[in-house]
Amino acid sequence: MQDLITLRQRYGRPPMIGAAFAGLLVLSPILMGGSPFLIFFSIGGLIIVGGGVITVAFMSFEAVEVRKALDIVKRMFMEEKPPVENLHDDVTAIIYCARLLMDNKGMRNLESVISKSGIRDPFLKYGLNMVLSDYTPDEIRAMLETAADAGYERDNVPVEILQAMTSHGPAFGMIGTLVGMVAMLCNLTDNVTAIGPSLAVAFLSTLYGVLSARFLYMPAASRLRQEVENRRFRNHLVTEGMVMLVAKKTPMFVQDRLNGFLRPEAHDYFDITKSVAHVSSVPMVAAA
Amino acid sequence: MQDLITLRQRYGRPPMIGAAFAGLLVLSPILMGGSPFLIFFSIGGLIIVGGGVITVAFMSFEAVEVRKALDIVKRMFMEEKPPVENLHDDVTAIIYCARLLMDNKGMRNLESVISKSGIRDPFLKYGLNMVLSDYTPDEIRAMLETAADAGYERDNVPVEILQAMTSHGPAFGMIGTLVGMVAMLCNLTDNVTAIGPSLAVAFLSTLYGVLSARFLYMPAASRLRQEVENRRFRNHLVTEGMVMLVAKKTPMFVQDRLNGFLRPEAHDYFDITKSVAHVSSVPMVAAA
Amino acid sequence: MQDLITLRQRYGRPPMIGAAFAGLLVLSPILMGGSPFLIFFSIGGLIIVGGGVITVAFMSFEAVEVRKALDIVKRMFMEEKPPVENLHDDVTAIIYCARLLMDNKGMRNLESVISKSGIRDPFLKYGLNMVLSDYTPDEIRAMLETAADAGYERDNVPVEILQAMTSHGPAFGMIGTLVGMVAMLCNLTDNVTAIGPSLAVAFLSTLYGVLSARFLYMPAASRLRQEVENRRFRNHLVTEGMVMLVAKKTPMFVQDRLNGFLRPEAHDYFDITKSVAHVSSVPMVAAA
Amino acid sequence: MQDLITLRQRYGRPPMIGAAFAGLLVLSPILMGGSPFLIFFSIGGLIIVGGGVITVAFMSFEAVEVRKALDIVKRMFMEEKPPVENLHDDVTAIIYCARLLMDNKGMRNLESVISKSGIRDPFLKYGLNMVLSDYTPDEIRAMLETAADAGYERDNVPVEILQAMTSHGPAFGMIGTLVGMVAMLCNLTDNVTAIGPSLAVAFLSTLYGVLSARFLYMPAASRLRQEVENRRFRNHLVTEGMVMLVAKKTPMFVQDRLNGFLRPEAHDYFDITKSVAHVSSVPMVAAA
Amino acid sequence: MQDLITLRQRYGRPPMIGAAFAGLLVLSPILMGGSPFLIFFSIGGLIIVGGGVITVAFMSFEAVEVRKALDIVKRMFMEEKPPVENLHDDVTAIIYCARLLMDNKGMRNLESVISKSGIRDPFLKYGLNMVLSDYTPDEIRAMLETAADAGYERDNVPVEILQAMTSHGPAFGMIGTLVGMVAMLCNLTDNVTAIGPSLAVAFLSTLYGVLSARFLYMPAASRLRQEVENRRFRNHLVTEGMVMLVAKKTPMFVQDRLNGFLRPEAHDYFDITKSVAHVSSVPMVAAA
Repeated sequence: MQDLITLRQRYGRPPMIGAAFAGLLVLSPILMGGSPFLIFFSIGGLIIVGGGVITVAFMSFEAVEVRKALDIVKRMFMEEKPPVENLHDDVTAIIYCARLLMDNKGMRNLESVISKSGIRDPFLKYGLNMVLSDYTPDEIRAMLETAADAGYERDNVPVEILQAMTSHGPAFGMIGTLVGMVAMLCNLTDNVTAIGPSLAVAFLSTLYGVLSARFLYMPAASRLRQEVENRRFRNHLVTEGMVMLVAKKTPMFVQDRLNGFLRPEAHDYFDITKSVAHVSSVPMVAAA
Repeated sequence: MQDLITLRQRYGRPPMIGAAFAGLLVLSPILMGGSPFLIFFSIGGLIIVGGGVITVAFMSFEAVEVRKALDIVKRMFMEEKPPVENLHDDVTAIIYCARLLMDNKGMRNLESVISKSGIRDPFLKYGLNMVLSDYTPDEIRAMLETAADAGYERDNVPVEILQAMTSHGPAFGMIGTLVGMVAMLCNLTDNVTAIGPSLAVAFLSTLYGVLSARFLYMPAASRLRQEVENRRFRNHLVTEGMVMLVAKKTPMFVQDRLNGFLRPEAHDYFDITKSVAHVSSVPMVAAA
Repeated sequence: MQDLITLRQRYGRPPMIGAAFAGLLVLSPILMGGSPFLIFFSIGGLIIVGGGVITVAFMSFEAVEVRKALDIVKRMFMEEKPPVENLHDDVTAIIYCARLLMDNKGMRNLESVISKSGIRDPFLKYGLNMVLSDYTPDEIRAMLETAADAGYERDNVPVEILQAMTSHGPAFGMIGTLVGMVAMLCNLTDNVTAIGPSLAVAFLSTLYGVLSARFLYMPAASRLRQEVENRRFRNHLVTEGMVMLVAKKTPMFVQDRLNGFLRPEAHDYFDITKSVAHVSSVPMVAAA
Repeated sequence: MQDLITLRQRYGRPPMIGAAFAGLLVLSPILMGGSPFLIFFSIGGLIIVGGGVITVAFMSFEAVEVRKALDIVKRMFMEEKPPVENLHDDVTAIIYCARLLMDNKGMRNLESVISKSGIRDPFLKYGLNMVLSDYTPDEIRAMLETAADAGYERDNVPVEILQAMTSHGPAFGMIGTLVGMVAMLCNLTDNVTAIGPSLAVAFLSTLYGVLSARFLYMPAASRLRQEVENRRFRNHLVTEGMVMLVAKKTPMFVQDRLNGFLRPEAHDYFDITKSVAHVSSVPMVAAA
Repeated sequence: MQDLITLRQRYGRPPMIGAAFAGLLVLSPILMGGSPFLIFFSIGGLIIVGGGVITVAFMSFEAVEVRKALDIVKRMFMEEKPPVENLHDDVTAIIYCARLLMDNKGMRNLESVISKSGIRDPFLKYGLNMVLSDYTPDEIRAMLETAADAGYERDNVPVEILQAMTSHGPAFGMIGTLVGMVAMLCNLTDNVTAIGPSLAVAFLSTLYGVLSARFLYMPAASRLRQEVENRRFRNHLVTEGMVMLVAKKTPMFVQDRLNGFLRPEAHDYFDITKSVAHVSSVPMVAAA
C-alpha cells in the first residue's frame, strides 16, 4: 500500500511555455521601442509590484503559510509534479481489507498486514487505526469527517493566500503607475517627446502587475485548489470505506458503494476471480 | 431504452449569427478607417489575447480538461447539438420497471429486459445494476447520490475553465494594449497624426479580448453549465426512481412521485390503460 | 378557489417615468450639442449594444427562455401587471379544506368541491390530487418539495438571462466605443475640432450600454426575481398546508401553523364563528 | 414586559459629521475653483444621479418597500435611533415564565400575566399564544422558525433595495459624465480653456454618484442589515425559549440554555435568590 | 489550565517592513519630483481618504465595534501579538478531565480541580459549568453550539468593518481625485506646465486610497478573520470534548475523537504511561 499515491505527470509543459510567453510580453516594449534606458527605470516597477504583493501577503497571513504558497508558485516551474490521488488503488485496497475482515481472525490479520505495509498517508493511517480500535460505524464517521474537514480547512489557507496575491498584483501595478505619473506630472514641460518615456515607464508597472497575477498567482491558486479538492474527495471515499469496514459489509457491497465515487468507465462490478487476481498485485499484499 | 436520451435541436442559428456579428465588429475599424496596415499589426493583438488565454488555461488546469473546454467552444459552431435529457421518457421507463416488479418473478424479468435493451447511459446502468443486487433503499440512495454528486463535480471542471477564460480575455486585451501603448510612448514625437494608428493598434487588443470573452467563452460556459445542471437534475430523478423500485412502490405512486420533477403541463396522472399503451411504445419493451 | 391568485397593481407608473427619463438622457447630448449628424452615427452604437446583447443571449441560453426574458422586459412597460400571490386567501382555503376533512366523509366531499371549483393553479392542483390519493404526510412532503424546487429552478432561468444581459450591456457599450475610437484614431489629423464629434459618437455606445442595463435589464431581472421568490414562498406554504391536511390536523392547528407564513398584522387567531363567516365568502365555497 | 425592547442610543453623531463632510466635498471644487457658474450646471448632474437612482429603484421594487428604504436613509439623519433588542430582558422574562409554569396552575397564571402586560412585540405575542395552545415542542419550533424566517425575508427587502441603490449611484454618475462629455466634444474648439469648465461639470456627476453611494445608501444599508440580523438572532432566542416553556424545562435549564445566546460577560448562572429579586423588577411582574 | 491559551509570535516583522515600504511609496513622488509644495497640498488628499473612510465606518456600524476594528489596525504595528489557540493543550486538558470522570467521585473531583485552576477562557468555563450541571449530551451540544455560533457572529463584526473600509479606501481616493480634477479644470489655462502639479496632487488621493486599503485595512481584516476562524474551530473542538465528558466516554475514545481536529503530525495515539506523564505537566494538575 506504500505507493497508493503515485506521482503521475498531469500538466505538460504549459508553465514553461507560459513563462516564455510572459517574458516576451515583458520584453516586447523594449524590443519594439528600442529604448534601452527603459530597462533601468522599469526596475522600480518590478520592485513595487513584486515587493508589494509579497510584503502584504506576509502582513496578512502567517509566515509559514505564505512560504508554502510561494513554494507552490516555484514548484509550478520545476519538474516536481503534484501527486495524483489514484482513487482506483484506494478502492482496491479497501476491498482487500473488507475481504480480510470476512474471516474470523480478520482484525488480527488486518493489523499485521497494516503494520507490515508501512502506510505513509496520514489520513488512511488514522482511519485504519480507528477501524482496529473497534468503535461503532457512527463514531468512525464522526472522527474521519472531522479529520477530513479540518485538513481541508488547513490545506485551503495557501489557496486563499494565492487568491489574495492575484488581487494584489494589479493593485500594486496601479500604485506603481500612479507614483510614476505623479513624478512625471511634477516635471511637466511643453516638450511632448519628453513625456512619452516617463509615461511608458509608469505604465510598465500596471503591465507587470497584471502579468504576474495572470501568469504566476492565478495558475498556482487554480492548481492548488484542484489538488486540495481532490484530496478532500478522496478522503471522503476513504471515510465511507472505513465506515463499511467497521460495519462488516461484504466486499461486494463495498465495491458497489465505492464505485459511485469513480468515473463510470472505471466502475468495477464485483467478480470474485478477478478481484483476487487484482488484489494480489497490490503492493500491500506483496508486502504481507 | 437505448434512446432514452435523444438529440433534439435546442439552439437555433445564434452562434453563426454571433460569429458574423463579431467578425463584422472586428473588421469594422478597418472598413471605416480604410487603413490596410492595421491588419498587419493587429495580428500581434490576436496572438497576445488568444495565446495568453489558452496558455494560462493549460497552466491552470489539466490538459485533458482544457481540451474538453475548447471542444465545447468549437462544438458551439458545429451542427452537433448538445443532447437533451428527455425526462418524460425516463419517467415512462421507470414506471414500466415498477410494473414489471409488481409481478412475482419481477426481478428476473427486469434483469432479462435490461440485458436485452443495451442501455448506454452509465448512470442508469449503475442504478439498475444496484436495483438487481437487492440492497436496501437507503443503501441505493447513498450509492446513487454519491455517483450523481461525483459526476456533477467532474462535469463542472470544463465549466470552471470556460469561466476562467472569460475573465482572462479582457485581462490579456489590457496587457496587449499596455504593451502597445508603452511601445508607442517610447517613440513619441510631436507629430500627432503618427500617434493615432499606433494607439488604434493598441486599443485593438482590448477589443479582441472583450469580444472573445463575450462571443466565445461566455456563451460556451453558459451552455455547458445548463447541460451539466440538467444532467444533475435528471440523475436526481433517476435516483428517486431506483429507490422506489427497490422499495417496491406501486407504479401509481412512482408516477405521482416522479411527476413532481416534470413541468406541470407534462404531469401524467396515472391511468392504467393509458400507461400500458404508453409503455409498449418504449424501445426497451420493443427490444424485449 | 379560482381566483386564489388575483391580479393587483403593485408597481405604479415608474417604468413609464423611467422610460421618459432614459429617453431624455439619450437625447440630451443632441439637445445640448445641437449637432444633428450625431443622430445618424449613433445608430451604429445602438446596433452594437442592442444587437450584441440579444445575440449573445440567444447564443448562451435556449431560445424559448430568452424570449420569455425579453417578454418580461416588454411587459414591464405594458399595463399587464404581474400576478400577486394572495397568501391570505390560500390560508383561508386550506383551513376550509381542513374543516371539510374533520367530517367522516371528508375525502369524498373534498373531492367533489375540488372538481367543481376548477382550480387552475398547477401546484395547488397537484397538491390536492396527492392529498386525495391517500399517501402518508412524508410522501406528500417529498413530492411537493420536489415540485416546488423543480419549479423554482425552471422559473429562475429567465432571471439568470436578464442578469447576464445586465452584464452584457456595458460590455457591448465598451466594444462600440473601442470600435469608434480605433476608427477615429486611424484618421487622426492635427485638426482638434474634427476629433470631437467622432469621439462623442464613440462615447455614445458606452452611454447606451449603461443606460439599457440600468433601465431595462436590471429592473426586469429584479422584478422577476421577486415574483419567483414569492411563488416559491407560497408553494412552501401550500406544501405545509397539504401535509397537514393529510395528517388530519385540526383547523385550529392549521391556522396557527400557517399564521407563521403571514405578516404579523395578518395573523388570524382561530375563532369558529369568524372562520365560518370567512369561508363562505371564498369563491370555492360559492362554486360548491 | 411592555418595554422588553427599549430604545437606546447606538450611533453617535457620525451621520451629521458625515453629512457635513460630504457637503464640504461637494462644495470644495466651487470653493477652490471660485467659478460660480459651476453651481448652475451641476444641477443637471444632481438630477441625473438622484433621479436615476430613485427612478430605477421604483422600477425594480414595489413602491411600499422603496419608500421604507428611503425612510431608513432619512431616519439616519434624524434623532430617531433604531431600537436595540435587549436580549438580557428577553431572557429574564422567559425565565420568569418558566418559573410560573413550574406551578400546577402555571398555564392559567401565565395566561393572566400575559393578558395584563399588553405585549406589543408581534413575534413574542405569537410565540406565547402558541405556548398557551398546548402544542408539542416540535410543532412550536416549526411554527416559530417559519415565522422567524418569513419575517427575516420580508425585513431583508429594503436592505436589498439600499444595496441596489449603492450600485446605481456610481453608474448614474458615469451616465451623467458621459452625457456631459458627449455634449462637450460636439462643441470642441481649439480653445483649451473653454474645455475645462464643461469637463469639470461632466466630472461632477461621477463625484455625486460616488458620494451619494458612500454617504447615503451604503451606511443606511449596513445599519439596516445589522438591525435585521439582530432581530433574527433575537427571534431565534425567543423560539428556543418558547420551545423550552412548552417542554416544561426547569428555570435553571432555561437559564443555562439561553446563556449561550448572550455575551460571556452577560452570562447569568442560576441562583434562586438572585433570580427572584431580578424577576420582581421586570415590568411584566409589576403589571401582574 | 490557566495558560491554555498562550501567546506565541506568529507574524514576524512584516507589518513594520510594510509600513516602511508604504511610506517610501507615499514619499517617492516627492523624492523623484523634488517639488516640496506637493507636500502641502497632498494633505487635502490624506484628509479626504482617511477622514472619509473612518466617518463612513462610524456611520455604518456601532461605534464600539468600529473602535475595536481600528484597534486591530493599530495592534498590527505594536508588539502585542494576537493569541494563538493551542489546540494540543486543550486536548490534553479534556483528556485529563475524562480520566477524572472515570472515577466514582469524578464529578466532585472535577469540580474542585476546576474551581482551583481559575480558568479565564469564557467558552471553556461555560462548557465545564454545563458538564457539572449534569445535562444530557444533546442538551450540552445544543448549548455550546449556540454559544460558539453566537460568539462567531459577534467576533465577525469587526472583520466586516475592516472589509468595508478596504472597499471605502479606493472609493475615497477616487473622490479626492475627482475633487482635485474639477478644481484644476476650472482654472485651465493654455500653460501646460501649470496643469502638471495640480493633476499630480489630484492623483495622490487615489494613491493614498489604494495604499491605505492594501497596507492597513486588508491585512488587518485578513488577520482578524483568521483569528476568528481559529477561535470558532477551537470552540468546536471544546464542544465535542464537553459532549464526550458528559457521555462518560473513555479517555482513549476522547483522544481518538479529538485527534481528528489536530494536524496529522500532532496526532497522539493513546498510551497510558505517556498520557499520565503528560497530564502531570499540565498547569491545571499542578494547581490541584
